[in-house]
Amino acid sequence: MKYGIIGTGAIGGYYGAKLAHAGQEVHFLFRSDYEYVKQHGLQVDSCNGSFHLPQVNAYRATTDMPQCDVVLVCLKSVNNAKLQSLLPPLLHANTLVVLIQNGIGVEEDVQQQFPGVQLAAGLAFICSSKTQPGVVNHQCYGSINLANYSCRDEALMQTVVDEFRAAGIETGFVEYNEARWKKAVWNMPFNGMTVALHTQTDQLLKNPSTRQLIREQMMEVVTAAQHLGVKNLDAAFVDKMISTTDAMTPYSPSMRLDYDFHRPMEIYYLYTRPLQIAREAGCPMPKLEMLDAELRFIEAGI
Amino acid sequence: MKYGIIGTGAIGGYYGAKLAHAGQEVHFLFRSDYEYVKQHGLQVDSCNGSFHLPQVNAYRATTDMPQCDVVLVCLKSVNNAKLQSLLPPLLHANTLVVLIQNGIGVEEDVQQQFPGVQLAAGLAFICSSKTQPGVVNHQCYGSINLANYSCRDEALMQTVVDEFRAAGIETGFVEYNEARWKKAVWNMPFNGMTVALHTQTDQLLKNPSTRQLIREQMMEVVTAAQHLGVKNLDAAFVDKMISTTDAMTPYSPSMRLDYDFHRPMEIYYLYTRPLQIAREAGCPMPKLEMLDAELRFIEAGI
Repeated sequence: MKYGIIGTGAIGGYYGAKLAHAGQEVHFLFRSDYEYVKQHGLQVDSCNGSFHLPQVNAYRATTDMPQCDVVLVCLKSVNNAKLQSLLPPLLHANTLVVLIQNGIGVEEDVQQQFPGVQLAAGLAFICSSKTQPGVVNHQCYGSINLANYSCRDEALMQTVVDEFRAAGIETGFVEYNEARWKKAVWNMPFNGMTVALHTQTDQLLKNPSTRQLIREQMMEVVTAAQHLGVKNLDAAFVDKMISTTDAMTPYSPSMRLDYDFHRPMEIYYLYTRPLQIAREAGCPMPKLEMLDAELRFIEAGI
Repeated sequence: MKYGIIGTGAIGGYYGAKLAHAGQEVHFLFRSDYEYVKQHGLQVDSCNGSFHLPQVNAYRATTDMPQCDVVLVCLKSVNNAKLQSLLPPLLHANTLVVLIQNGIGVEEDVQQQFPGVQLAAGLAFICSSKTQPGVVNHQCYGSINLANYSCRDEALMQTVVDEFRAAGIETGFVEYNEARWKKAVWNMPFNGMTVALHTQTDQLLKNPSTRQLIREQMMEVVTAAQHLGVKNLDAAFVDKMISTTDAMTPYSPSMRLDYDFHRPMEIYYLYTRPLQIAREAGCPMPKLEMLDAELRFIEAGI
């Protein structure tokens, strides 16, 4: 199988390099790192064992890339409009596009752009960053679950899971809506609140007022998701997310990093879109709506 | 009549000086300004005409003050526990205590501390500040409405209004609950939001997301107040508050000033208490609850 990676950053760089390191044919789209990687290859500094790929199929443009069987889209969702031109050169009739992106609604919108294309969601649970050209820093975790959105070819999905596992990537299948909304339970409170209060996960949980607020925001997501028919999501899951985060080292979620580095924040798919879905279903999330407004104010001032 | 002023700052200094300037007997409690005022008197720089009081009845302790017929309490509400010792020396059987303070619930709590004492609320609409010892800077407005809370002596209330008017202070009677909640419609969104987003009134209204949020927070107050039986409060009042604020020059409410100058913020009476009253009445204000939590987090970090 041929793999294509759109967005070779902390996430795409890690999973793509793991697959290539295991012998898969992987084609990487680069922007600013292109020249460096052409010359020096790709380095993965990983808690599970570092490695180097001296020869990388690196490209500047998808028009130079071959058609792929599996495309991993690892762009920030704020750049999804670019898929309109980036994606078509990589697609054949049976290509599976896996969106490894944050938020709710990305698959629906990409499907509208590309009605026939087979889509899956990739839900990565990983701490990694790209601190210099051609180097991925993988600090911990690394699993990625796949959720079928519109893939007709179940054997292809299974092959992807098998090949990920063969490459040392922990993976499995999850139900699409359940997985996306479960992720939102953690993502919606912590991403925005660390920006709004300019802090990290541990401080938000240490202060009794914000600890309570985080729990209420998580319950807003749970209640909305239940209202939308999502299964296996209840107050016990909120307890689990809180205690998991209690056990984590102080953490800056991706939105806080985007804010710190003056990059656009993924407000639309992390907040505006799920808030709109919940509101239209008659189950608004008032505290997260307020956070959305605060983030938009903050973003306008950056 | 004898007037006592507890808390001779921007508010107490202004109203007390106006009364004294008009010939009333006014006794002022000072803290750090005592020595300066004893020597140099009290200066009011006012948009309506500046004046100087060379001789001031200034005190360091209420135990040195005479019993008064009317006491204006102009402390920040965060200091109300101090009234337990400050107030008794000033009280005789018919003393009227006027609380010129922000928020909701102050009268109820002071009444519990002093069950028999006659209380009124003073709702000041004034921009003034104290920028140096013994000098009050009165920028604009200056009216103060009185709301009876537990005054049995209506003639006394009327005399206060008459003497305020004779001193050039615009005043009148308002209904207690209506007045306190109407003030909360403006106070609750703008005080906290200017702190949470480190901004001023104009920026909050210029950004469409926070403009909408401010309106929703105002409607939370209106809805809760209506639920509590408060009259003459509806969406039209929210429109009026928004358009009044649109017309104002960029403004930092008192909580933003407290925050900027590292003074304690009046979170309890401006947020926690009214939120609790509304929640107990079955009409919670979720967006203002979130603001309360954010402010507590910010205060803990100061």
